[in-house]
Amino acid sequence: MNEHVYCVIMAGGAGTRFWPKSRRSKPKQFLDIFGTGKSFLRLTYERFARTVPASNFIVVTNANYRDHVLEHLPEIQPSQVLCEPVGRNTAPCICYAAYSLLQRDPEARMIVTPSDHIILKEETFREITEQLLEFVSDHEVLMTVGITPTRPETGYGYIQKSDNNEISRVKCFTEKPNIELARTFVQCGEFFWNSGIFIWKVKDIVAAIEKHLPEHHSLFSSIIGDYGTEREENAIKHIFSVCRAVSIDYGVMEKADNVFVRCGDFGWSDVGTWGSLYQLSRKDEYANVKPASGCFTYGTRNCIVSLPKDKIAVISGLKDYIIADTDDVLMICPREEEQDIRKYIDEVKFNLGDKYI
Amino acid sequence: MNEHVYCVIMAGGAGTRFWPKSRRSKPKQFLDIFGTGKSFLRLTYERFARTVPASNFIVVTNANYRDHVLEHLPEIQPSQVLCEPVGRNTAPCICYAAYSLLQRDPEARMIVTPSDHIILKEETFREITEQLLEFVSDHEVLMTVGITPTRPETGYGYIQKSDNNEISRVKCFTEKPNIELARTFVQCGEFFWNSGIFIWKVKDIVAAIEKHLPEHHSLFSSIIGDYGTEREENAIKHIFSVCRAVSIDYGVMEKADNVFVRCGDFGWSDVGTWGSLYQLSRKDEYANVKPASGCFTYGTRNCIVSLPKDKIAVISGLKDYIIADTDDVLMICPREEEQDIRKYIDEVKFNLGDKYI
Repeated sequence: MNEHVYCVIMAGGAGTRFWPKSRRSKPKQFLDIFGTGKSFLRLTYERFARTVPASNFIVVTNANYRDHVLEHLPEIQPSQVLCEPVGRNTAPCICYAAYSLLQRDPEARMIVTPSDHIILKEETFREITEQLLEFVSDHEVLMTVGITPTRPETGYGYIQKSDNNEISRVKCFTEKPNIELARTFVQCGEFFWNSGIFIWKVKDIVAAIEKHLPEHHSLFSSIIGDYGTEREENAIKHIFSVCRAVSIDYGVMEKADNVFVRCGDFGWSDVGTWGSLYQLSRKDEYANVKPASGCFTYGTRNCIVSLPKDKIAVISGLKDYIIADTDDVLMICPREEEQDIRKYIDEVKFNLGDKYI
Repeated sequence: MNEHVYCVIMAGGAGTRFWPKSRRSKPKQFLDIFGTGKSFLRLTYERFARTVPASNFIVVTNANYRDHVLEHLPEIQPSQVLCEPVGRNTAPCICYAAYSLLQRDPEARMIVTPSDHIILKEETFREITEQLLEFVSDHEVLMTVGITPTRPETGYGYIQKSDNNEISRVKCFTEKPNIELARTFVQCGEFFWNSGIFIWKVKDIVAAIEKHLPEHHSLFSSIIGDYGTEREENAIKHIFSVCRAVSIDYGVMEKADNVFVRCGDFGWSDVGTWGSLYQLSRKDEYANVKPASGCFTYGTRNCIVSLPKDKIAVISGLKDYIIADTDDVLMICPREEEQDIRKYIDEVKFNLGDKYI
C-alpha cells in the first residue's frame, strides 16, 4: 500500500428511496440492507482497505452522521471524518477533502467513492482501482469509472467514450437521459453509466476546480492554513453557508478536457430502490425476497419483505409487493409503484412532521 | 345495589383468533381492540358496576393472568380473583366461583358473564339483567340470556325457546349447527344465540351441578371449608388436575329442566374474529377500518388495519385485507382467509416455538 494513496468516502447523503428503512437519522449508507451484518459504508471501506492504509481514509459526511461513521468504521480516527454543516452536493464535498488533503500531502492520489453502492466482483474492481492509481500518477487526468449498462436506466448519468482503448478519453457526459435516449445509449455501445467513482492526483483535481469552479477554489483555498486546526470547523461552516451547491459532474467533469474513463463489469449497483434490491437479492421458490427465517408466506409471490430484527411476519395472498416494516413505520405498496414512496413521505411529513422521515 | 348480588366474570380464555394482537400472554379480554382506552374486561366490569357492588365481583382466570386482571380492575381486591391452575372449560370455572360463593353467602344470586364480548345498548341490557335478578330470586331457575340472531352463524350455540313469553322455558340447546340448520334457525324465529351470560341463585346452580355433574359436585363441595383460606390454592390445584373439562352448557344447561331464556337485542357481539371487528367498527370513506391518525392509505378499500401505539403505516393497493401489526409479529392476510389464522399460528409455533404465540 502506498502512503500517498487516499480514499475519500462521500457519506453525507440523506436519500429516502429506501424509506421507511432509510431515514433522515439513518440513511442508506448506514443500513445493512442485505442482512450481511455490514452496512453499505462498511462494505465500501472494506472494498478499498487492501489498497489504502486505514489512516488514509477520509469520510465526508453530515455533522449529524459523524457518530454513525465512527461506529461503522472503528479503524479510523475522529480526525478522518470531515463534517459538512449542510449538504451542498458533491463538488463542495470533494473540494473539502481535496483542499485539506493538498495541505496534508501535496503528492496525494485520491480515490473518491460513494458510500452506498455495492460491487459484487470485488477482486476485478480492486485490480482496476490499482491500475487507475498507477495511471493517474503518470498522467494529469481525471479518471472516472464507467459501468457497462445492462438496461436503459433513466436515473443515471452516462459517459460516452471517444475510442476503444481500455482507458479512454471521455467525449461527453449526459445526465439522466429520457427513455428513448437511454435506449439509444445502451444499443450504441459507446456509453457507460457514471459510477460516481473518481481517481486523480489531488493537485490535478484542485487545478480543475480552480479552472472550472473558481468561486469554490477561492473559498476552499482561502482557508488552507485552517485545515486540521481548531479553526477548521468555523471556517468550513462559513464556506458551506456561502458556496454554491453543484455536482462534481456538472461543475468539473463535463467541462474539463482531461477526463478519462475506464469501463468495466464488476457487478456494480447503486441499489437505489426497493426494486433494484429485489433484483439483486436471492429469492425463494416463489420469487420472494425475504428474511431467511421468521417470514411465513402463503400464496405470495414476487414480493420483497424487510422486517426489523427478531420480528416475524405472516403474509398471505400478495403478489409483487414491497412490505417494508420498521419499528415505527410499516409500508406496504405494489413494487411497480415504488416511485410513489416520495409522495408517501411528503404526506407523512405534511401530517406528522419529521418524526417518521 | 343488593349485597347478595354477585358478578362472576370468566376471564381465563386464551383464544388466538385475534392473533397476532391477542397472545397467550395477553389474550383478547385484556385488549383494547377498539382503541377506546378500555379493555374488554374493563368494559365487562363497568357493564355490571351499577348493579353489583365492587366487592361482589369475582373474576375467575388463569393464574398467569392474575396481575393483568388486577391492573385492569383496580377496584377489586386480590382475594376477588380466583385462579384456575389450568383451563377446564366453563363448568369447573363456574363450579369454583359458585361453591366458594355458597360458603360465603348462601343467599347469593350470581350473574355469570364472559369477559370478552361487547354490548352496545348498555342501558337496555342493564334493565334486563335487573329484571332477571328479580326473577331468579322468586324462581328456582337457571336463566340464560339469548340474542336475536342476525345471520346464520355456525360458530355459536343456539337456544330454542318453548313459548312467546318474555322469559321463556328453554326447549332445546344446539351447539354450532351446520349452515343449513343455522339458516333454518334464523328463519324460524324460535332460536336465539347463546350469549354465555347466565343468572341464577347460587344454590340453584349448585343443585343443578349436584344432579348433572355429580363428580364435579363431589370435588368442589369436598373442599367447602377451604375456600378463602390458605388451603384453597392447593385444594383447587388438586381438583383442577383431576376434574373433567366440560362446558356448563353441555354439562348442565342442556340437561336441566329448569332453564329459562330471556331474549333481547342489545347490540351484543362476541367480536370473535377480525371480520366481526371489521363489521362493528367505524369505517373511513373507502370502507377501511384503521387508526384515526397515522394510517395513510392509497387505492386501499375494505381493509382492517391494527397498529401498535405510535406506529404509522402507508398502505397502497390492498383490497379486503387484514393488516395486523404488533411489536414482534406482522400479519397480512385476505379478510376471507381469516380462518387460516389458526394454520399460521400452528406453523409459527412449529418453527419458532411459543415465543410469538
